[in-house]
Amino acid sequence: MIDKLIDKIIALQNPTCVGLDTDFNYLPDDMRGDITSFEDAAERITEFNMNIIDKVCDIVPAVKVQIAYYEMYGYKGLKAFDCTVKYAHGKGMTVIADCKRNDIGSTAGCYSKAYLGSTELNGNKLKAFPADMLTVNGYLGTDGIKPFVDDIKANDKSIFVLVKTSNPSSGELQNLKLESGEYVYERMGALVREWGKDTIGKYGYSEVGAVIGATHPEEAANARKKLPEVFFLIPGYGAQGANAEMLKVCFDNRGLGGIVNNSRGIICAYRKPEYAGMSYCDAARAACIDMQQDLLTAIGKMGR
Amino acid sequence: MIDKLIDKIIALQNPTCVGLDTDFNYLPDDMRGDITSFEDAAERITEFNMNIIDKVCDIVPAVKVQIAYYEMYGYKGLKAFDCTVKYAHGKGMTVIADCKRNDIGSTAGCYSKAYLGSTELNGNKLKAFPADMLTVNGYLGTDGIKPFVDDIKANDKSIFVLVKTSNPSSGELQNLKLESGEYVYERMGALVREWGKDTIGKYGYSEVGAVIGATHPEEAANARKKLPEVFFLIPGYGAQGANAEMLKVCFDNRGLGGIVNNSRGIICAYRKPEYAGMSYCDAARAACIDMQQDLLTAIGKMGR
Repeated sequence: MIDKLIDKIIALQNPTCVGLDTDFNYLPDDMRGDITSFEDAAERITEFNMNIIDKVCDIVPAVKVQIAYYEMYGYKGLKAFDCTVKYAHGKGMTVIADCKRNDIGSTAGCYSKAYLGSTELNGNKLKAFPADMLTVNGYLGTDGIKPFVDDIKANDKSIFVLVKTSNPSSGELQNLKLESGEYVYERMGALVREWGKDTIGKYGYSEVGAVIGATHPEEAANARKKLPEVFFLIPGYGAQGANAEMLKVCFDNRGLGGIVNNSRGIICAYRKPEYAGMSYCDAARAACIDMQQDLLTAIGKMGR
Repeated sequence: MIDKLIDKIIALQNPTCVGLDTDFNYLPDDMRGDITSFEDAAERITEFNMNIIDKVCDIVPAVKVQIAYYEMYGYKGLKAFDCTVKYAHGKGMTVIADCKRNDIGSTAGCYSKAYLGSTELNGNKLKAFPADMLTVNGYLGTDGIKPFVDDIKANDKSIFVLVKTSNPSSGELQNLKLESGEYVYERMGALVREWGKDTIGKYGYSEVGAVIGATHPEEAANARKKLPEVFFLIPGYGAQGANAEMLKVCFDNRGLGGIVNNSRGIICAYRKPEYAGMSYCDAARAACIDMQQDLLTAIGKMGR
């Protein structure tokens, strides 16, 4: 799946990902109306997401759907997550389910079935939330990651493991120095490299990627150097404070190696002065184009 | 919530938790029938769980509902999770949602709303999956945990943070030695202690507990010594290979300090030779009583 994503990034000259962290409160007033039930809220969120997807799918290669924003509306919210994942996929976008799942092997296997594989019921194989890529947390080590890697290989999927996250306190654990001289995030990165070593595609990147926050350029540059086959999912651009100059260290000398997520900066663009008067869809598209230009200026042509 | 759980553990003389990791394939043949849809499977799983809960709620203080086993049946599976959480709660059991959620602060806030707080829609506050306690992963550090701690304080809830997990490869990250001389799991434990310091209840335990696998007795004993106010959720008993002798180190000199989970050993007890001929409910109850005796023999009276 990583090759297909990179193909699209090169074709569109756009290494970005629209984050559908669709809080009900991000919807325009007229869509929120007087809704007070999870079911109705979930329907409006789905409608909002579909309209955004329609408007950006020809210029953006991927969406990242943050499941926490759907879980907070209960199982009805998860129906909206499901519809969003399937709709984006139907429009040709690569769908990253941002779930940061993690557990012991047998349980990680269930999560993998849910997002990357299928669940069998009396011989009938069904897909729960069929994404292309999934974020996971590697704190439990290899046996908690293996079920995902197995499904990656069987079904042409990818995962991104949390290595150095974008939040301010990520260093509390991730930047601890080990006796060996490595930092914890570097050790996690080395495990990621190991987990993906049999899955390297035509661009030299593996199906086991890393989440590397754009807000920490020093660690990002170090990770790019140490993990040459690891593709990065890069959060932190925009609302979290990182800019294109800070994250260009994540890319290789071909302008490849990462995809940059922006959530509120796109889906809430219609509330910003620079997009005043536009519909939420038009503002989202305009914000995508502006972001693309910003990244191209910093990173250069993709696939050069 | 930790005081209420410990009250129940003392009243029932039972520091155990029934793990409802209800894979559809764990159901008796006649319940599985020829079902091939998520919706039908979810209904049967709910029925199975309700019957187990009815049969054990007078002798067991808590259930742990492992959400991965519901996510693999899509949003219809999550309706079964929702029904199970609410039914167990209605029967007076403490409900631990085993979700191991984790993210940056704003997103962790959504997860916290989903399980420990409430979601507001135009002024109407609704609960998504109203659990009493939630498992979380602390790899992102303090700002990813703070939203949970805020809801704990506001709504009388608890969390368990992964410290030393029960799986074989947990040591790959968790047992790395830091430059400071501490192990990574010890540092995570120290953060857990810090996160819970304002929430210590009448038994001396805080609302921010730790997941400590029974399969690693040396680390468990060390964690008990270093984290005197931290209550432990202890997986690994039974199917994963740990026994009562291995996990008694998790308890203090009053026989308190932890709750031991058993999933397959109880919900699949009806398949074991020692419970042959019993219904799945009767076998589950018998297995709970056997486990209680086993733990009491090793740990001694609770609340002595």
